Amino acid sequence: MKHNFGAGPCILPQEVFKEASQAVVDFNGLSILEISHRSPDFVKVMEEARENVKKALNVPNGYTVLYLQGGASLGFLISAMNLAGKHKKAGYINTGAWSTKAIKEAKNAGLEVVEVASSADKNFSYIPEFDVPSDIDFLHYTSNNTISGTQFKSIPDTDVPLVCDMSSDIFSKEIDVSKFDLIYAGAQKNLGPAGATLYIVKDSVLGNSSLENIPTYLDLETHAKKDSMFNTPPVFSVYVANLNLKHLLANGGVKAIQELNEKKAELLYNEIDQNPNFEGTTSVKDRSLMNVTFRLTDESKKEAFDKLWNDANIVGLKGHRSVGGYRASMYNALKIESVEALVNVLKSL
Amino acid sequence: MKHNFGAGPCILPQEVFKEASQAVVDFNGLSILEISHRSPDFVKVMEEARENVKKALNVPNGYTVLYLQGGASLGFLISAMNLAGKHKKAGYINTGAWSTKAIKEAKNAGLEVVEVASSADKNFSYIPEFDVPSDIDFLHYTSNNTISGTQFKSIPDTDVPLVCDMSSDIFSKEIDVSKFDLIYAGAQKNLGPAGATLYIVKDSVLGNSSLENIPTYLDLETHAKKDSMFNTPPVFSVYVANLNLKHLLANGGVKAIQELNEKKAELLYNEIDQNPNFEGTTSVKDRSLMNVTFRLTDESKKEAFDKLWNDANIVGLKGHRSVGGYRASMYNALKIESVEALVNVLKSL
Repeated sequence: MKHNFGAGPCILPQEVFKEASQAVVDFNGLSILEISHRSPDFVKVMEEARENVKKALNVPNGYTVLYLQGGASLGFLISAMNLAGKHKKAGYINTGAWSTKAIKEAKNAGLEVVEVASSADKNFSYIPEFDVPSDIDFLHYTSNNTISGTQFKSIPDTDVPLVCDMSSDIFSKEIDVSKFDLIYAGAQKNLGPAGATLYIVKDSVLGNSSLENIPTYLDLETHAKKDSMFNTPPVFSVYVANLNLKHLLANGGVKAIQELNEKKAELLYNEIDQNPNFEGTTSVKDRSLMNVTFRLTDESKKEAFDKLWNDANIVGLKGHRSVGGYRASMYNALKIESVEALVNVLKSL
Repeated sequence: MKHNFGAGPCILPQEVFKEASQAVVDFNGLSILEISHRSPDFVKVMEEARENVKKALNVPNGYTVLYLQGGASLGFLISAMNLAGKHKKAGYINTGAWSTKAIKEAKNAGLEVVEVASSADKNFSYIPEFDVPSDIDFLHYTSNNTISGTQFKSIPDTDVPLVCDMSSDIFSKEIDVSKFDLIYAGAQKNLGPAGATLYIVKDSVLGNSSLENIPTYLDLETHAKKDSMFNTPPVFSVYVANLNLKHLLANGGVKAIQELNEKKAELLYNEIDQNPNFEGTTSVKDRSLMNVTFRLTDESKKEAFDKLWNDANIVGLKGHRSVGGYRASMYNALKIESVEALVNVLKSL
């Protein structure tokens, strides 16, 4: 068995892979890939997949759950277009490559952007302090930064509508959805296969953009009115996301997985901190529980270390080119045994 | 075994379903769903999937093949934005619901739209004649109309750049790609699972829109520059599309499948024409080889007919609500034995 520390897509429980595999050859007598998205069988899958998001995150009344396409990259644009208000101006906390791209798309949507804070000065290795201006339509942030390995430890306290790209830590810990006007997330970390993008939108947002002529697909109201079936959805991705959500709910839900994720992170960060061969690359207080970035204190040991983890059946440990070193991504489905295997490798260097 | 006459998504060869199913549990030691899209294994899949489109359709030099997301519904917008030229005006042939939606998105993109021709007067039951004005940036048409069951039998002859939504008949017959500036197609008919959208774009189009600030994801140049990996692609859909393309190429390619599709269509249309219980719903000369629409001449026989085809393990035969009656979709992967089974049912009424 391989220990998959890859940054995604998309480690999922083995039980989910098995059931998904079976459905590709037989889902009520057809392949899940060849059933109509308008068939009662799939309509039920879509309904469950939306409902199970609400269950898993205790989504309060007054929110709509949608599965669209295009990833967070299209979400940057969709969020800005749909949340545009009377100021046509938005605040962005810039904590890395994804925030930077989100800012670019808000500008492409025609909004003025205030960069409320940025950690670009130190290669995005920390979460910056910030004050939120009042004359903005919304505040946008990236809850977890896969590349640099930082994560917000609390939800920004603000009176303006809050928008969050939660692609890489949604379902990894409990969150208070009521604080958000919009949450969006590419599925391919803790939810399901690449190809679906989750939106959790406050109903009061729908249809209230100040922009004229939002293209149909980019208008969240389009999809809300059609129960997330305005056009052919990414059938298989939604089906597998639902399998994964059912598995999560049957195993203690987000509360239980949060405890496990905290244990996994503690195990690895403790080893990095006490092992003189390694050092973390981010501010300690802002360390991500999902993506652990670290490097060798002595680069001459690289070959030996790389051989050790390769021999231990560990995959996906290479750091992103903009940070260097190593990155251990520890999404929900990564077992603690895999973290123990990695810690043993670190100890053995 | 069920005979799947559904309008999609997405009947594919059983061999493809089997190989796809296997890859969900084991693709070089991991699930295909959990491998990084930047891994050499998947980069190779994406390269092959793009190259095999070129092979299957004899795409000439000077074109780029891309797999994006969002379906044709987003393609309506992307095509208009990228093809906008000095006139900021485009011609559309309106042959049904999909063309109508395409027109709406061209307007949302800020273009003036000339409806060059329309068959709305007869519920889109035929392909209209048209003259193409010269002062437009491009001419757009929908090559096959899944809902009404009509299909263009030849490529419109024009000097202006030609754009085609080929969602429901691409890969079903040979086409001269050199006549087009842009072809786009939702994957979920003859290519692969819902969630991927194919673009075949002439390189001279890239970066030459007259619109300013095209959002990043909607700009085809973005994706062309990144070899169709600007952001996380719909990994599984692309993987299965490639399996299907390999299967197509290994079995005589588009030329062979075209012959089979013509035989299948002849078989069914002949029966409809000679059987007094049934009548086609479209103009005979414009009949689709992919979606055969027909109805009972005597509605009182509905219950008997519905029982017959249900008993014969036929699924997906219900007509679209806007046309009524029946629709037999006969995509590439539908075997001629399934058409024979349906013809036998028609005969037995």
